[in-house]
Amino acid sequence: VGEPGTEGSRLYPLPPTSRRNKVLTQDLKTPDSHVERDPRLIRLTGIHPFNVEPPLSDLYDEGFLTTKDLHYVRNHGPVPRVKDFEILGWEFTVEGMLEKPVKMTLRNLIEDYEQLTYPITLVCAGNRRKEQNVVRKSKGFSWGAAGVSTALWTGVSLGDLLARAVPKRGARYVCFEGADKLPNGYYGTSVKLNWAMDPNRGIMVAHKMNGEVLHPDHGKPLRIVIPGQIGGRSVKWLKRIIVTSAPSDNWYHIYDNRVLPTMISPEASANLPDTWKDERYAIYDLNTNSATCYPAHDEKLSLSNGPETYKFRGYAYAGGGKRVSRLEVTLDQGKTWTLANITYPEDQYRLAPENEVLFGGRLDITWREACFCWCFWDMDIPISQLRGAKDVMIRAMDDSMMVQPKEMYWSVLGMMNNPWYRVVIHEEGSTLRFEHPTQPALIPGGWMERVKAQGGNLMNGFWGEKVPGEEETV
Amino acid sequence: VGEPGTEGSRLYPLPPTSRRNKVLTQDLKTPDSHVERDPRLIRLTGIHPFNVEPPLSDLYDEGFLTTKDLHYVRNHGPVPRVKDFEILGWEFTVEGMLEKPVKMTLRNLIEDYEQLTYPITLVCAGNRRKEQNVVRKSKGFSWGAAGVSTALWTGVSLGDLLARAVPKRGARYVCFEGADKLPNGYYGTSVKLNWAMDPNRGIMVAHKMNGEVLHPDHGKPLRIVIPGQIGGRSVKWLKRIIVTSAPSDNWYHIYDNRVLPTMISPEASANLPDTWKDERYAIYDLNTNSATCYPAHDEKLSLSNGPETYKFRGYAYAGGGKRVSRLEVTLDQGKTWTLANITYPEDQYRLAPENEVLFGGRLDITWREACFCWCFWDMDIPISQLRGAKDVMIRAMDDSMMVQPKEMYWSVLGMMNNPWYRVVIHEEGSTLRFEHPTQPALIPGGWMERVKAQGGNLMNGFWGEKVPGEEETV
Repeated sequence: VGEPGTEGSRLYPLPPTSRRNKVLTQDLKTPDSHVERDPRLIRLTGIHPFNVEPPLSDLYDEGFLTTKDLHYVRNHGPVPRVKDFEILGWEFTVEGMLEKPVKMTLRNLIEDYEQLTYPITLVCAGNRRKEQNVVRKSKGFSWGAAGVSTALWTGVSLGDLLARAVPKRGARYVCFEGADKLPNGYYGTSVKLNWAMDPNRGIMVAHKMNGEVLHPDHGKPLRIVIPGQIGGRSVKWLKRIIVTSAPSDNWYHIYDNRVLPTMISPEASANLPDTWKDERYAIYDLNTNSATCYPAHDEKLSLSNGPETYKFRGYAYAGGGKRVSRLEVTLDQGKTWTLANITYPEDQYRLAPENEVLFGGRLDITWREACFCWCFWDMDIPISQLRGAKDVMIRAMDDSMMVQPKEMYWSVLGMMNNPWYRVVIHEEGSTLRFEHPTQPALIPGGWMERVKAQGGNLMNGFWGEKVPGEEETV
Repeated sequence: VGEPGTEGSRLYPLPPTSRRNKVLTQDLKTPDSHVERDPRLIRLTGIHPFNVEPPLSDLYDEGFLTTKDLHYVRNHGPVPRVKDFEILGWEFTVEGMLEKPVKMTLRNLIEDYEQLTYPITLVCAGNRRKEQNVVRKSKGFSWGAAGVSTALWTGVSLGDLLARAVPKRGARYVCFEGADKLPNGYYGTSVKLNWAMDPNRGIMVAHKMNGEVLHPDHGKPLRIVIPGQIGGRSVKWLKRIIVTSAPSDNWYHIYDNRVLPTMISPEASANLPDTWKDERYAIYDLNTNSATCYPAHDEKLSLSNGPETYKFRGYAYAGGGKRVSRLEVTLDQGKTWTLANITYPEDQYRLAPENEVLFGGRLDITWREACFCWCFWDMDIPISQLRGAKDVMIRAMDDSMMVQPKEMYWSVLGMMNNPWYRVVIHEEGSTLRFEHPTQPALIPGGWMERVKAQGGNLMNGFWGEKVPGEEETV
């Protein structure tokens, strides 16, 4: 399988050059002492396990495709160690309710199946969770708004793999299990078999990211990648694909990646096994979300000698193949809205010549109508308008005409947080200073902590500010 | 093709008995003087064309399946007249970018293709539009909350039909055209070819509704039915299926069934042809919505000799095959929420024996994971709690974790209105009186008109009530 033809056809984005990293000092005393990492990544759960997001500005600056260096990572435990010479011999099974179950190697997968390449945005279900944790501590660590990244993934269609193994009657789910041994067993989860067989869903068994062998943090040498769904379903270090009649009973499938009803407290949730097992609360498709990347948190804008406008900009995404159809900006707390520009770099791949090959895989996107990737928005706002506003808020709408909510839907695991993203404006002398809702991990800062510390009720429908006319509450 | 086997297997709902109606006096002088109708239907656009919804309570009382008598109707003009003896000879084309275009009759469709039956909820994109019209007049007539109905539809998979006609390379859309000649041409619209070919989407060319020949108002003798999408795409009196490389350029495809960005006024919209033509604003999948049916508008509840609880109940639906995963009720204006019970009668069909035949079609649902139908919710609320509350509001969440918004997204055509459904409680002497947001058509009543008449700003984030502590505005 060759590389793409003429340079002239390459009108779509290619990955930025990634760095050569070293093993970081802080990883040396952990089980991940074999993993080379970028020091810019922000650790969300102490030193180990490795759960990180990049600085939001750095993520945005990389553009549509994220390098392995800055791609967010969600690891539950130690990273399995696979040496380069072991990659092609990596064994995994396709088993369960199948006429032709098979044990195969990555070499078989590459040699015997059609290879595909396309861009996919992965998002952690916990993206923006810090905001929920400020309102009320959830059972989850504090992601900022950079738990999202996009890469070109190369591999085999899961549906192709399963079709050759011939699912039996009554088969309805596909379970995945990784090689990462954890306190509650190997990490595992499941999706519906129907989705796995649906080419529109684009579920892939991937062995390359941005044209390179998978980085250890991203599943070296083999993983599932599911477009439009939360990252928690895209099992890394893949060892088993198991077709079943029922959803996975893996501990991590049941007790992670769920949005329990909002009235269930962390304390009450401990005694509600049937609620945890209710598949209606399991998260698969991403919900619609957006964030402002520039101005960055604490960025300052000179009023004395700057330009007359500032270009606000950021990202947005939707789930399940849906497209973000509009992004709106308000400077008066929702009374009026203005439409931002949106660009969809993903669509540039759709214009590639048919049968274009990239990184050894057919660029399998031209025929597909679904959206698998984030998009970018921007809006030039006159400085004079910013001076008159308390804040700048954004909301995205998807093509099913669902819009991001004004208010947070708090839940026990703090997942899928997607209220309007609010950047507060402070005029300080001859500068404007911008304040994001939070900063990731334990990093202090953001209007949410500030307002809460001042006694504001963040859930009062006014972001904890005084309701107009309300008595002083502090 | 036979009828279903044992009665014992029929654990799923069958249609209620429909009435024998007559031509109504008011229709005699219209082009629809050949159409027999149920007098209970509420006319939304004067006498003609016929656009109606049933009384909300009557709709709810019929249960999961709606008879032809009460099924909502959206007609743009006169109903084409097709006599019974003409049904099987009804001609239509499958044309455009196809290797094997075909002109065929309904008889061919029935004899040469596999017949399928399954339940589908249709919803008008204008459902609940009256609420938008009270806030600000839109370019659309005033649906209440009963622009939604469910029936068992029998016909042929559109994908099956198209596969035999073999779409050519570059084909991306399927246009539909009806026999209803209108001021701007025949009614027509389009959907993506990809969806038409996708069995999970379940798009059908239907010739039976609840086991009977189609009623004239519902497309006699042949129509498209698209689960999970707005009714406006399900073209009635089907004459042409046209495969194309671009979306339909039919006037009704462009200037109807769109949600333009909220800041575009009716006046401004007149000069924005590119905005109208932006497919991102075209509505296909339904958004998530819900309504309270009981207590009905103006229903009174005795406090002196009644039971201790009242069972609130209503419907909910989501689009694009999604399931309503929870419905929540608040009695304190959104501060706290309680989970309602939900029933999914659609799931009872999934339990039918494989290859079950109903109304001459295979009950094609057991394998499908998607939700095509509305569900019902209920909650027993203690009277004592109702006495202490100003209102009862509900919101549904779908399985992509998107929740109905608190606030209305107003747009020029007033479509896809789905904020929290609010029923106001009035304690009057020894009774509680319940007040819905609006009444359909020009029928007065509802808290929205009342609040607006009193000078309240319906878009102030508090349903036009005084913001706590706010100065008197009247």
